[in-house]
Amino acid sequence: MSDFNWSISEKKLARHAFDTALETALAKTMAEFKSKAGAVTQPSDMWELEDYLRERRRDIDRTFDYRYSQLLYVFAQLIRAGYLDEKLLVGLSQDKRDVIQRDLAFVASRSASG
Amino acid sequence: MSDFNWSISEKKLARHAFDTALETALAKTMAEFKSKAGAVTQPSDMWELEDYLRERRRDIDRTFDYRYSQLLYVFAQLIRAGYLDEKLLVGLSQDKRDVIQRDLAFVASRSASG
Repeated sequence: MSDFNWSISEKKLARHAFDTALETALAKTMAEFKSKAGAVTQPSDMWELEDYLRERRRDIDRTFDYRYSQLLYVFAQLIRAGYLDEKLLVGLSQDKRDVIQRDLAFVASRSASG
Repeated sequence: MSDFNWSISEKKLARHAFDTALETALAKTMAEFKSKAGAVTQPSDMWELEDYLRERRRDIDRTFDYRYSQLLYVFAQLIRAGYLDEKLLVGLSQDKRDVIQRDLAFVASRSASG
């Protein structure tokens, strides 16, 4: 996949899709955090929330990897997680979109059989 | 200090003082946490709060050390932190209370000269 060429317009589109998905992921995490924080009544709830925040931060840091060699798999993962609307990827070359679709189909088939 | 003998009544009193200070420390942390959580408006605020919780958890875990070899220094530290009311230690032998007072005076003199 690292052999793909990315045109200037594709790079611009990819950056926009990536940034939009990151905003969505952070907004969802903030909303979950606010809800959990409001429900804290015991010290143990507070430490659970610390664990939750650490895991979310680590997940987001790991997932949002903007290397072109990884980006199509990252996009597939973001679509699965509900952070990215596929429509934002219209304008990528068909071969790139095929990679994303194959990744989505592969993971879906694995989940179905698993 | 590890040579001190602890009578049954002293152990009971020490356990009560320790537990009360722990409750105070946790209640203060919870109140600070609630205030900070309410003020979160950006993802960066949320990650700062995660850092804050991790540090508070680590501090509390380190400070609240119930080994008799450490306990008088722990009590002095808890008094300095505002988590322990010295009145709860009335009933400890004078030599133990002297150790606490010397620790408090030593740290106070160091702070004053520092």
